[in-house]
Amino acid sequence: MRELILGGVRSGKSRHAEAQAAASGLEVVCVATARALDEEMRARIAAHRARRPAHWRTVEAPLALAQALAREAAPGRCLIVDCLTLWLTNLFVETEAERRGAEVAALLEVLPRLPGRLVLVANETSMGVIPEGTLARRFLDEAGRLHQEVAARCERVTLMVAGLPLLLKGGGS
Amino acid sequence: MRELILGGVRSGKSRHAEAQAAASGLEVVCVATARALDEEMRARIAAHRARRPAHWRTVEAPLALAQALAREAAPGRCLIVDCLTLWLTNLFVETEAERRGAEVAALLEVLPRLPGRLVLVANETSMGVIPEGTLARRFLDEAGRLHQEVAARCERVTLMVAGLPLLLKGGGS
Amino acid sequence: MRELILGGVRSGKSRHAEAQAAASGLEVVCVATARALDEEMRARIAAHRARRPAHWRTVEAPLALAQALAREAAPGRCLIVDCLTLWLTNLFVETEAERRGAEVAALLEVLPRLPGRLVLVANETSMGVIPEGTLARRFLDEAGRLHQEVAARCERVTLMVAGLPLLLKGGGS
Repeated sequence: MRELILGGVRSGKSRHAEAQAAASGLEVVCVATARALDEEMRARIAAHRARRPAHWRTVEAPLALAQALAREAAPGRCLIVDCLTLWLTNLFVETEAERRGAEVAALLEVLPRLPGRLVLVANETSMGVIPEGTLARRFLDEAGRLHQEVAARCERVTLMVAGLPLLLKGGGS
Repeated sequence: MRELILGGVRSGKSRHAEAQAAASGLEVVCVATARALDEEMRARIAAHRARRPAHWRTVEAPLALAQALAREAAPGRCLIVDCLTLWLTNLFVETEAERRGAEVAALLEVLPRLPGRLVLVANETSMGVIPEGTLARRFLDEAGRLHQEVAARCERVTLMVAGLPLLLKGGGS
Repeated sequence: MRELILGGVRSGKSRHAEAQAAASGLEVVCVATARALDEEMRARIAAHRARRPAHWRTVEAPLALAQALAREAAPGRCLIVDCLTLWLTNLFVETEAERRGAEVAALLEVLPRLPGRLVLVANETSMGVIPEGTLARRFLDEAGRLHQEVAARCERVTLMVAGLPLLLKGGGS
């Protein structure tokens, strides 16, 4: 079962992903994409970690996400990817379009073949005023395309609003 | 019955709140949080007032919201709080983090204990591009957390899009 | 049947509109509102055109939209308007408030009287941080009001998220 959890800033998407993973009864591995580049990011990462059960393992995959998923996915295991948006941001900041395209293609290719369960988290950033900067618009384009492609490969897609899940695709809780 | 009505700019959330209050058949009191600081705000406030029935009373609570709710709430009365976002903005602009935290805590504490009916309006601002300013991000964090906490204390939560209500929690109209 | 398809940047709204038009079995005419003012816009317009069946006719209506709809609408024909947001942007950039108000009023007046089928596309831009510029806020106000008024005149309203349709009004596919 693959699930995509979208939501705005502080909409409860990580918490919902963690609740889904905990409810699965499977071994949980967190695939973290954040870079601890400044104080604010370090605080956010620490807060996420502090909330999760101590026996959940965390692996870091700021760029080579498909590779990490192929390595970590296993029957009887649930991976949480938190989050696709930071991963795409890292690719924008640290790589060129070619590498970025290859990483995105690798993710989309590996997704349907992964064993076990997968919960992917992403920021919904497309519903505000369209930004003036060309780079910001390109990011929105690529993020939107990524969300569409990942959603098409997931059995369940949920939009979080004010901590409440709104089902966009699939069923069950 | 407590209800939270979220929505973007000009999504029809105030109008929906007023329709819900009118349909309740109860005495209606508007708890307004806006500060009439400039021409644009004065025009917005005047437009809101002009739309409401003349016999609805309005009280102002730009900062001490919990106190106003505790004072005004009564069985057989419906309070409209319009809106939580301006209230939080006022707290950001006019107070320090400590006072702000205390006001938010007071609101969350009083909400479940209020008699009568309550309709709370808030701006959904979390689904655009993540802003670059640290203060804007902190505002989004606190607004998102507030929405989650208020939603958890409401029987019904609605997201307005293009004037249309989308039910996120609870039932009925 | 009139339908409004809202959605953020790259949410799949044009694609969904085109799929709805193709599924109608009717003759399809695209009413394009984009101005090919720069390279980026030219590329976006070309990508849209390349995706559509070659036998679909395209007419341009960057400003006088109501006029174009009145001229092109016919029984047995499906018009796609892509998109209302660029049209409103053009009116903001190229006309004064009076002409803009008249064009919007003309659209709202003609909508309920058009024969055939109509699929209107618009950008949902209201759920991000409220912009600081007065002009941007005025745009959001007018766009939000337009969405409400158009939605009230449509039998079906859909919000696209990650390529998935979320029904806000009406039924069917």
